[in-house]
Amino acid sequence: MLDVALLGTGGMMPLRDRFLTSLMLRYNGKFLMVDCGEGTQISLKILGWGFKNIDVICFTHYHADHISGLPGILLTVGNSGRTKPMTLIGPEGLKKVYEGLSVIFPELPFEVNCIEVTDAEKFSFMLDDMEITVNEADHIIRCLSYGFYLKRKGKFDAEKASSLNIPKNLWASLQNNKSVVFNGVKYDSEMVMGKERRGIKVCYCTDSRPVKTLPDFIKNADLFICEGMYGEEEKFEKALKYKHMIFSEAATLAKEGNVKKLWLTHYSPALPEPEIFYECAAKIFENTVVAYDRITDKLLFENE
Amino acid sequence: MLDVALLGTGGMMPLRDRFLTSLMLRYNGKFLMVDCGEGTQISLKILGWGFKNIDVICFTHYHADHISGLPGILLTVGNSGRTKPMTLIGPEGLKKVYEGLSVIFPELPFEVNCIEVTDAEKFSFMLDDMEITVNEADHIIRCLSYGFYLKRKGKFDAEKASSLNIPKNLWASLQNNKSVVFNGVKYDSEMVMGKERRGIKVCYCTDSRPVKTLPDFIKNADLFICEGMYGEEEKFEKALKYKHMIFSEAATLAKEGNVKKLWLTHYSPALPEPEIFYECAAKIFENTVVAYDRITDKLLFENE
Repeated sequence: MLDVALLGTGGMMPLRDRFLTSLMLRYNGKFLMVDCGEGTQISLKILGWGFKNIDVICFTHYHADHISGLPGILLTVGNSGRTKPMTLIGPEGLKKVYEGLSVIFPELPFEVNCIEVTDAEKFSFMLDDMEITVNEADHIIRCLSYGFYLKRKGKFDAEKASSLNIPKNLWASLQNNKSVVFNGVKYDSEMVMGKERRGIKVCYCTDSRPVKTLPDFIKNADLFICEGMYGEEEKFEKALKYKHMIFSEAATLAKEGNVKKLWLTHYSPALPEPEIFYECAAKIFENTVVAYDRITDKLLFENE
Repeated sequence: MLDVALLGTGGMMPLRDRFLTSLMLRYNGKFLMVDCGEGTQISLKILGWGFKNIDVICFTHYHADHISGLPGILLTVGNSGRTKPMTLIGPEGLKKVYEGLSVIFPELPFEVNCIEVTDAEKFSFMLDDMEITVNEADHIIRCLSYGFYLKRKGKFDAEKASSLNIPKNLWASLQNNKSVVFNGVKYDSEMVMGKERRGIKVCYCTDSRPVKTLPDFIKNADLFICEGMYGEEEKFEKALKYKHMIFSEAATLAKEGNVKKLWLTHYSPALPEPEIFYECAAKIFENTVVAYDRITDKLLFENE
């Protein structure tokens, strides 16, 4: 099971009723955030998921509306009692950006590790059972789209374990994919564990034009979160110029990628009621949601 | 006339219903801000005073809750069409802090001048008729309190101007304290202008223990805006430790400085209802206001 929340759905600047776009994922006590602009910590406080357990923050790029909330988040995480290290992931330049911002938060009670993504195709980061991958976006500066895949182990075959006379006190270890030696006999988890099952896949793309590799990157995702800076078709030229998307482009990507659900986000401040343009996306991809601040979902494994 | 607004009244971190402490002054089309933490631009948007004409931002110090909103404010000011230079004022280190933060806002359509205050006693900055002065505060890092004095010219003596046969087309220049030569005769403004009259004085002190020089610095102010991080007397030890004040200390300063009005601000996030402790201050200084976000006041010159 994977909990998903969008802390904000705005682009460019925070508004009274719309924080900047930021994603939060929660699973097995692990917390993962994507982007944190000015005000993100306020939205997280309202949502109530807490600050202490944020293990990873991923950044799409370093425009202020995607990172200016970092000093505040880090200080609030520190005040909440975290002492375990935190990992930041983003395009090249992350260390320089972190160092620059750190002039206003010189001391933290936990270590921060910055991981800069150089080769997007080869990048993979595991946080417990979650694999983070990236895809190059197409924006004014280098920008990354993210893929999150929560793996699911195979099924434990209790009948087989019994028939093989494997002592019950070893079952838990084997279920955790560990091999065990007991009374001189070695038991491998493969003996009783089925093949890895389908996991949960969430993809996140903001601040980008549609990219050729994206349909494949988001293929069969349970949830595709994609920017829709502008709703109406007439804004296409503007989207081209500023390297953003209109709703119909996000929907086309969702269709091509055969995803299960699309959340639109990252609306222009000049788009106060994005839901008006729902049809621009829904006529192309039916399962579209014009997302709003603190929309949440609980994504389940198959037959969970 | 001087318009005053507190954009926020919180300390440490922005909350759902309380932005971080920030002051806005407006007079003769000039706008002046003190501190801008995370979310300040949202509050200013709600207040509706606009962004384009912010000429000066003063910083008390560089803890994140007082400056982390700067990148966002600068970008929004830029988007609002400003091309005139902006001035930032603060303790030493401002240029380094500005440079650090600028990693997330590399390009602005206007120039930013950073003025670092080294010798507080000698510091004075004029923005039109407003004089900005500072006083050393007593915090964990170097911090400044600010004084704002809006000057008021003397009265123009029309009868005297007539009796001296000064041509009427020269009156406006003389009223603006300029000397004029006309038909070989020199006219000085002193001939027709009375002595400078009492102006409007606003003082601002957050993130500080009470300082000996402060009562004199705030002497007779029309409005004294002072931190009250904690309400109750029992928090005195905490105030000492973290270099903040309790309500009664702010009120004592207001009384000693013989100010006209006190606004309390910069409340701890652990103080959700500061108004409960109103009496702690009011029993010492009657004209106390437990300020709230976007409280405004219109301060008038005497007999204006």
